[in-house]
Formats: sequence, structure tokens, C-alpha cells
Amino acid sequence: MKDIADIPALMAQIGAQAKAASAELAFAPPEVKRAALEAAADAVWSRRTEIIEANKKDLEFGRDKGLSDAMMDRLMLDEPRIEGIVSGLRTVAAQDDPVGEVLTQWDMPSGLNIRRVRTPLGVVGVIYESRPNVTADAGALCLKSGNAVILRGGSESFHSSGAIHACLVDGLKSVGLPEAAIQLVPTRDRAAVQELLTMVDTVDVIVPRGGKGLVGLVQREARVPVFAHLEGIVHIYVDAAADAQKAMDVVLNAKTRRTGICGAAECLLIHESLAETLGAALIQMLLDAGVRVHADETLQKIAGTTAATPEDWGKEYLDMDIAAKVVPDVDGAIAHIRQYGSNHTDCILTEDDATAARFFERLDSAILMRNASTQFADGGEFGMGAEIGIATGKMHARGPVGAAQLTSFKYLVEGDGATRS
Amino acid sequence: MKDIADIPALMAQIGAQAKAASAELAFAPPEVKRAALEAAADAVWSRRTEIIEANKKDLEFGRDKGLSDAMMDRLMLDEPRIEGIVSGLRTVAAQDDPVGEVLTQWDMPSGLNIRRVRTPLGVVGVIYESRPNVTADAGALCLKSGNAVILRGGSESFHSSGAIHACLVDGLKSVGLPEAAIQLVPTRDRAAVQELLTMVDTVDVIVPRGGKGLVGLVQREARVPVFAHLEGIVHIYVDAAADAQKAMDVVLNAKTRRTGICGAAECLLIHESLAETLGAALIQMLLDAGVRVHADETLQKIAGTTAATPEDWGKEYLDMDIAAKVVPDVDGAIAHIRQYGSNHTDCILTEDDATAARFFERLDSAILMRNASTQFADGGEFGMGAEIGIATGKMHARGPVGAAQLTSFKYLVEGDGATRS
Repeated sequence: MKDIADIPALMAQIGAQAKAASAELAFAPPEVKRAALEAAADAVWSRRTEIIEANKKDLEFGRDKGLSDAMMDRLMLDEPRIEGIVSGLRTVAAQDDPVGEVLTQWDMPSGLNIRRVRTPLGVVGVIYESRPNVTADAGALCLKSGNAVILRGGSESFHSSGAIHACLVDGLKSVGLPEAAIQLVPTRDRAAVQELLTMVDTVDVIVPRGGKGLVGLVQREARVPVFAHLEGIVHIYVDAAADAQKAMDVVLNAKTRRTGICGAAECLLIHESLAETLGAALIQMLLDAGVRVHADETLQKIAGTTAATPEDWGKEYLDMDIAAKVVPDVDGAIAHIRQYGSNHTDCILTEDDATAARFFERLDSAILMRNASTQFADGGEFGMGAEIGIATGKMHARGPVGAAQLTSFKYLVEGDGATRS
Repeated sequence: MKDIADIPALMAQIGAQAKAASAELAFAPPEVKRAALEAAADAVWSRRTEIIEANKKDLEFGRDKGLSDAMMDRLMLDEPRIEGIVSGLRTVAAQDDPVGEVLTQWDMPSGLNIRRVRTPLGVVGVIYESRPNVTADAGALCLKSGNAVILRGGSESFHSSGAIHACLVDGLKSVGLPEAAIQLVPTRDRAAVQELLTMVDTVDVIVPRGGKGLVGLVQREARVPVFAHLEGIVHIYVDAAADAQKAMDVVLNAKTRRTGICGAAECLLIHESLAETLGAALIQMLLDAGVRVHADETLQKIAGTTAATPEDWGKEYLDMDIAAKVVPDVDGAIAHIRQYGSNHTDCILTEDDATAARFFERLDSAILMRNASTQFADGGEFGMGAEIGIATGKMHARGPVGAAQLTSFKYLVEGDGATRS
């Protein structure tokens, strides 16, 4: 390892190694990548004691730093969670290999046959926060898609991520793939992040996984392309033509099934004709479930609600809280979502096809839903296998980012001596 | 018009107008966009005298500025060229509308139906140089794909582009689409370009069309995503297993059909076993056709060649020049192309399938060809209709960028009250 005080030199070396590895990975056979991931899964399981020991150091560091209980919980690894990491690695191993897939092919009158074939992107930089399992998930998805990856974990999970990374390297070595295919930045120094964001010659794309602060920093500072992963300010609009039972089921599930995921509902918009009927029933149901309802002027008449402040619109609670507001119609809901949404996932509850079509057409969220819980906003629930996150930008990847979204393509053109006239 | 001295205010206004227009364009019906383009084509033809008058001012400016003959030729508009612009607009008008296309759809066991549907990107910025016809091509492709566009033409074509832009606006007005759907930056001040490159809140992607200087500036300065359009440093490798007649036909066509396009061959790599046979014949053929051959040590023994200098490797001549070099085998060709290529288009001439597969697998150009002229590197020849350029980057668009490549997608998910367990 270079002198770790010299961060630019360290990162330049990591970048050069990643680029060299990516050239080999681009044509690594599917069965070799699969074997590497299986071997990594084996290594994680057989080295679990070591990983748990490393995790203890991180938990100690976290306690000294005064991390919240929620943060400490995200950080913690025990045997069941390590089983989860192992099964995640095996799931990605078993998925189809996207590289080399012929996306489409056609013949031209000139005699050319043209194939559009999936290729890896090259080098992916992943910047994440406290969850140490991201080390395994992101490393596995990047390897599956033939990309070299530079992982930069949160300082809280430094030792845990290091121990998991060592297992991934075991997997690579066992099949003879370059170790630099999956690198972990070996320092907590934040200067390494700044460096990573500007390595335009070696890094093809940055994927930030974390809170608003991290994502904002990356979007401001990156010179490299970024798959934006904004927060999930998820809206549900209950239309005049909503089915009452479906609305009750979906709203409760969307808000309370798990509150800490990005597909959890954060704002309920209710057609004004329903304010005193289905709307009131929905709010009562949420209150009964223990949700704090931050209600607008109309809805705050319902006992148990809290008066919403301007900050409640467009807020990602990730907790047992929801904002609630009456809107005049679907266009009112659309206008509210355009102003306060984050283009992640938004939902309409209606039995009216024309109203649903208007909502689908005039909004531009990565995921738009009708009569379904927003908690389905997840790569697994979309049938894509594991995901690295939900992209809210419009460039390249959008929605759940799995292995296929971490690829590009090239055109392979064959002729028989064809010349252009 | 605002005070044109205040470039940031001007560009902010243009950006805000574009964003507002893009929200409407996103769901403009296909037949309305088509009618706008047809009306624009009519307007260009009926206002051709006015356009030619405007072009005269540009030609005068160009002469005073001492532009080269080639530049003056690119700038010049006469009636046949205006006919070309008109037919270009009608071609785009007739193309299929990409917006709303269902790219794929599937059902999940949870009861969800998921559709992946094309959407516009939003606001596209196009920065180009002297060819005034780009105003019409880029404006039309962006409108077709439902994007608002901010056009920034070269200072040389200022008046011509303005006159063509006025016709595009005629087309928009005739069908009631927002005029701001296609805006032309109304100043030659270069500060407007700097501004455009950093408008992250209103511009979704920048497409630079022009020489190395412009593309480099955009890649260095842009804070907005860029569809990289590097130069075409196009290589042809003549393998030991090449068919002699196909090689003669393809090499001549690839170099000499048109030398000024980005798909023109710039470097010939010859398997060493052919140096004195087919290789020598190819070079003689090029010399006979009037091509200056910049040859390596081995090939410069052929009378009429020029000794290559280090600058000849990786050079885009765009003229009757070609570099020529002997390589030991396909891996030597691959290594040379990796070092000096621009990931645009590269070609192998061989009858051997394994060698061709190796070339296709280990190189990562946007377009790889076998036994076909590199002059086919063109959206029209790929069956994509008009193109805005050939993207050499790997993010989002790659290869010929037509209307479909100027789109993103969203997921439309329908359930029947589905909740996640």
C-alpha cells in the first residue's frame, strides 16, 4: 500500500488498477464470474467469526461517536445477517449474465447485419454509508455485469466492510480473476471521496447510496457521471373514483409495512369530495396504526392529527409519519407532486382509466403506480434480482438499478465486403 | 428580449422557458409534432430567399474572418442545400414517434403488471459549429422525441441559423405547440456556452457537435451530463485471413468515398504476413487514388509513401491521408487501437470467425465492423433515420444518436389493490 497520507496518489493507483481489471473483466466467461461469487459466499460464511469481530470494532467506534439506535442497528452484523449476505451473493451468482446479450439485431438492404450487444460500463465507483452489506451487494452486482468497482464505504463500517471485502477478493483469487476487480478504498479520509468524484479518466460512473447529504455532495462535486439516487418522497393520491377497500389496504401497507425504505409513502393526497368520508377513514386508520398525521387545514379537523407546517410538504420522514392534504382533483395532485416529489415513486388509487392515464402521462417519476403499494418499488419485486438502488435521474439507468442497468452496449456490424455508394 | 449584455439572466430565462415547454411536449400527440415538422419544412422552403440572404451575411463575416475554403463550403447555403434541409425535416416528420412506446412489459406473481415506457429526456442543449443545417436537424430530432431544445450554433452561421430557426418556430406556432420548444441562443457571446454547460436545474443533457476543441471544452466545463461525441479515429485491420478483393474494395471505400465524415478510415493496420503482398497492393491502390500514405518503417519502403511521425498514430485527418502500420497479429491490432483509437468505429477484414470474435470481444468501440466499409457508421445506414451525431461515450446513448436515443423511460405499474407482504 502507498503512503496513505497521499490520497491523490492512492486513488490514482486504485483507479489505474480498476481500469486494467475492467479490460479483462469485460470478456470474463459467465461461469467464471459465477464461480467467483459462489466462492465469495463460501468465504463470507467460513470467515463469519472474523467478520463479526471486525464489526465489534465498528460498533465500539459507533458508540463512541454517539450514533443513533437506528444507525447502530444498520451497522450491526450477527450470524443471521451474515446468512443474508451469503444468500444475497448466491442470488446474484445465479442470475443471468447480462454481458454479451444480443439486445436486438437486424439486417439492412446494404447487406449489413447489425447486432446491438450488452457490454460492461467499465469502472463503477460506489459511495455508501453505514450498512456493511452494501459492500457485498454492490461488489457482486458490479462483478456480474463485468465492471470493475471501487467501493468507498462509510467510516462507521470501516472494519466490517474490510472483512467482507477480503472475502470477495478470496472469491476473485480462487478463479484467477484480477483482485482489482473489486477494490475497497482503504482509508476513512474523506479526501478519498473528493478524489473519486473527479477521476474522469478511470471511473465511468458513480453510484451514491445514502442520505440526502451524501447524494447532494456527490451531485455537486462529481465530474464523473452519476446515477442520481435521490430520496423517495413518495406520494399516494386517492382519487374520487378510488375503491375504498383497495385504498385502505394500499395506504396502510405503503406507509407502515416498513417505514425506513425509500418506497414508503410520505404524503397522502385526497380528492376533496372524499375529505369527510374515505379520506377521514384513511386518516383514522393511520392514526390507529400509530402514524403521526401532519394534516392540512381541512384534515386537521380530525382529532389526533397534527397541523402540517410548510416543511411537511416534500419531506422524507422514513418513520411513522405522513403528510396529508386535500386536493381539488387529479390535476391538483399532479401539480403538488411536480412541486414536492423527487421523481422516485408516486401512486394513484382510482378505478377510472382516463384519470389513471392522465396521472401516468403527466407525471415523470421513475415509477408510477396504480392501485398498488409503493413498497413494491424494489428491484426484487420488479423481477430484476438484486439492486444497487433506485435511480431517480433520467440518464442511462432509471428505477431499480440491477446488473443489466450497469451495462452499456456496442454495435457489431458484419458485411461481406460491403461498400457504401 | 432581455438586455443581451446580461448573459446569465438571458440563459436563465431561456432555460426556464425550455423547462416549461418540455412539460407540455412530454405528452404532445405524435400527429401534432409531425404537423409542426411538416409546417416547418414548408416554411423553410417558402422563406428560402430570406434564408439565402441571411446566409450571405454569414459568408461575408466568414470571408472577413479568413475562414478556410472547407469552412466556407460548410457554411454556404444555396437552393439545393435548402432542399436538403426541407427533405431532412420531412424525413424526421415521417419517422415513428418514440415517446410512449412500450419497450417491454411483464406480470409479476404479486399481481403487478409492469410496463417500461419511453419518455423524453426533458431539455437538450445542442452546441454546434458552422453547419447551419444542424439547426434544423437537431431541432427536429429533439421535437420528435418530445424534448425541448436550446440550440447554440457557431458564430459563423449566426444569421443563417436564425433564419432557419424562425421557420421551426413557424411550425410550432402553426399547431399551437409552445414556441420555447425550440430556442436558439440569440447572441454570439461565448459566455452563453459556459452558462449553458452549468444549467443543471434546467438542462438534462448537452450534445456537442463539432471539432476536438469544442468537444474538449464541453467535456471539461460541463456540469450537465454530456453525450460525448469524440472524433472518429477509425482503424481498419487487415488480418492474415482477409479476402483480398473484399479488402481492396472496403479499404478504398472507407478512406476515399468521403474523407470529411467521422466514419472515414484514418489508419490501416496490416498483418505482418501480408506486408509485401496484399498490404503492398492496398497501399499502392491508395497512392494511385491520390491518398497520402503515412507509413511505418516497414511500409515506407513502398515508393510514394511518406514516413509516419509519432503524431500520425491516433490522428483524424478528415482528408486524403491515411496512416499505415504493420502489426504482428490481431492482438497487436487490438493493442494499437486501444492506445490510439477514439471508441468510435473500428473494423477488421478477415474470413476467420475466431479472429473476428476476438476483435469484437476485446475492443469496446461504439461500432465494430467486419468486412464492411466504416463509412456505414451513420444513423441512416443503421436504419435509425436522421441522427444528431455518433456518441463515443458509454453512458445512455452510444453510436448513432437518433430520436430514440434522446429518450429515457419510466415504469408504469398497475395492481388491483396489491400490497407487499
